[in-house]
Amino acid sequence: MHAITIPEAGGPEALVWAEVPDPVPGEGEVLVEVVASAVNRADIMQRQGLYNPPTGASPYPGLECSGRVAAMGTGVSGWNIGDEVCALLAGGGYAEKVVVPAGQLLPVPEGVDLRRAAALPEVVCTVWSNVFMIAHLRPGETLLVHGGSSGIGTMAIQLAKAVGARVAVTAGSKEKLDSCAELGADILINYREQDFVAEIERATGGAGADVILDNMGAKYLDRNVQALAVNGRLAIIGMQGGIKGELNIATLLNKRAAIAATSLRARPLSEKTAIVAAVREHVWPLISAGRVRPVVDREIPMDEAPAAHRVVEESGHIGKVLLVPPHHVV
Amino acid sequence: MHAITIPEAGGPEALVWAEVPDPVPGEGEVLVEVVASAVNRADIMQRQGLYNPPTGASPYPGLECSGRVAAMGTGVSGWNIGDEVCALLAGGGYAEKVVVPAGQLLPVPEGVDLRRAAALPEVVCTVWSNVFMIAHLRPGETLLVHGGSSGIGTMAIQLAKAVGARVAVTAGSKEKLDSCAELGADILINYREQDFVAEIERATGGAGADVILDNMGAKYLDRNVQALAVNGRLAIIGMQGGIKGELNIATLLNKRAAIAATSLRARPLSEKTAIVAAVREHVWPLISAGRVRPVVDREIPMDEAPAAHRVVEESGHIGKVLLVPPHHVV
Repeated sequence: MHAITIPEAGGPEALVWAEVPDPVPGEGEVLVEVVASAVNRADIMQRQGLYNPPTGASPYPGLECSGRVAAMGTGVSGWNIGDEVCALLAGGGYAEKVVVPAGQLLPVPEGVDLRRAAALPEVVCTVWSNVFMIAHLRPGETLLVHGGSSGIGTMAIQLAKAVGARVAVTAGSKEKLDSCAELGADILINYREQDFVAEIERATGGAGADVILDNMGAKYLDRNVQALAVNGRLAIIGMQGGIKGELNIATLLNKRAAIAATSLRARPLSEKTAIVAAVREHVWPLISAGRVRPVVDREIPMDEAPAAHRVVEESGHIGKVLLVPPHHVV
Repeated sequence: MHAITIPEAGGPEALVWAEVPDPVPGEGEVLVEVVASAVNRADIMQRQGLYNPPTGASPYPGLECSGRVAAMGTGVSGWNIGDEVCALLAGGGYAEKVVVPAGQLLPVPEGVDLRRAAALPEVVCTVWSNVFMIAHLRPGETLLVHGGSSGIGTMAIQLAKAVGARVAVTAGSKEKLDSCAELGADILINYREQDFVAEIERATGGAGADVILDNMGAKYLDRNVQALAVNGRLAIIGMQGGIKGELNIATLLNKRAAIAATSLRARPLSEKTAIVAAVREHVWPLISAGRVRPVVDREIPMDEAPAAHRVVEESGHIGKVLLVPPHHVV
């Protein structure tokens, strides 16, 4: 098969479409013929040599895909050859075929195009596990999502609205904020022109955000804590704004607030399986009902992955950028 | 009645035993004739003018007491005049009488002396709400308690052991560590001579502490995060080591760990009532069974409260320092 390989870490051109051996499913694993994958920021860090795949994972980038079940290892039940699926991967999605533990497979939700389903697994599992399983967002509460127009952001807006929460977003342009509003966001903050702490305070009558989903890390740490409500929960899933930040413990303590930081990719199979099962139970019905949908910026042929990485690095996109193996490009 | 008043913030001598009006129980409140109160660090901060009582609370210090029900407001059920009780207070325990919402009353546990019961409410509610309700310590996990010989520490050791956890403590002397060992602590760390991060790592085979109960705040923040296990939870309840600390978000994220900070005193009545109910259900049977006991360093007459504060400020004590109104001193 072909896959995107990284012979040497570097810029987008470090991604090389090359012939590699086919992966073989082991016990409890399924081989998926990939119809689409999607770009995540972790792929860019992996390309740059800053984020090594976890032990045992494919060396190729790609944390999610959609496709068809092509073969199964021993001990797999509930799936059949030819099933249309999407999957949460520990790596290897930028390829014509990928092996995945059966617990990380999901059926393609009713009404969703097979290719577009590749936009779902990573963002849905990340948002559900952080905003709902860790931070326990409840109906009537306010969620603040940084990067509201990103893949994560567009899914967080929709899921929070679907459970009856109020949603605030930050983004860097009117066009991006308009997209967030279309998806249901109630409070729109242009971080280039506005102070999100002041805007959240104003929009919530001084109460603050009950939950914040943050991809910035250090750069926003102090302001995020300031923007939290009493009993607020800050869920950090990225460090685009740096690693080390100053924490005002008195502010956190006076608010009886909490900070959690997670990375989905590094979680053990048992935790991923539990998240995928929860997503199938709670989120898939919302997608099948048309209340939540994948947001896709564009599709790019997989052998042109360098172009796809440039799009994501320039942050001009809204939602997910898909990668489609050349023979599946329509 | 008499109470300890604070005419002007300052050192221990700022505490003045003076005649004041009797408090009157309102709706849902109970008047308790105080047989003993106990010193908490928050009382010292209040005396220093650094910690104002929450709105509506008594102006006198004292976050817990034991005594007898002397009168009841309307709408109180389940208690009778003369009942021997202990209570979690928002203030006012350094007095001959105090008014408390009925939801913050607890019966004196079987087998516990009425005066010594004053050592229980604040530490039991603090430990239970943080270590169990927030940080969810589970059997087989490792709890690290800073200040193991403090009132909080001595209770945390006993409760964690009672539920089948492993307990590590830090303290500043061999005598204090010996007391911790008598209460069941498994891993003893002298913070004056040892690095607690290295000691926890060694004692857990590199895994780290699943839960840390911290009273130091900024000074220990970075090391506490280093000492956490994967999925670890840091519960901060004090800031004796300062307010602003550097947080390494990458370390937190790689461990999928969380930090929560709380103050019991500021919690609304509904949350205190829920904590007191949980304590009565889960902890009181352990005390009645003799598996967990109040640890009392000494009793001091309440009109000598300045001496009691000096003892706590010098940190030579183990467990709680009680204050007994003069006519109850035996």
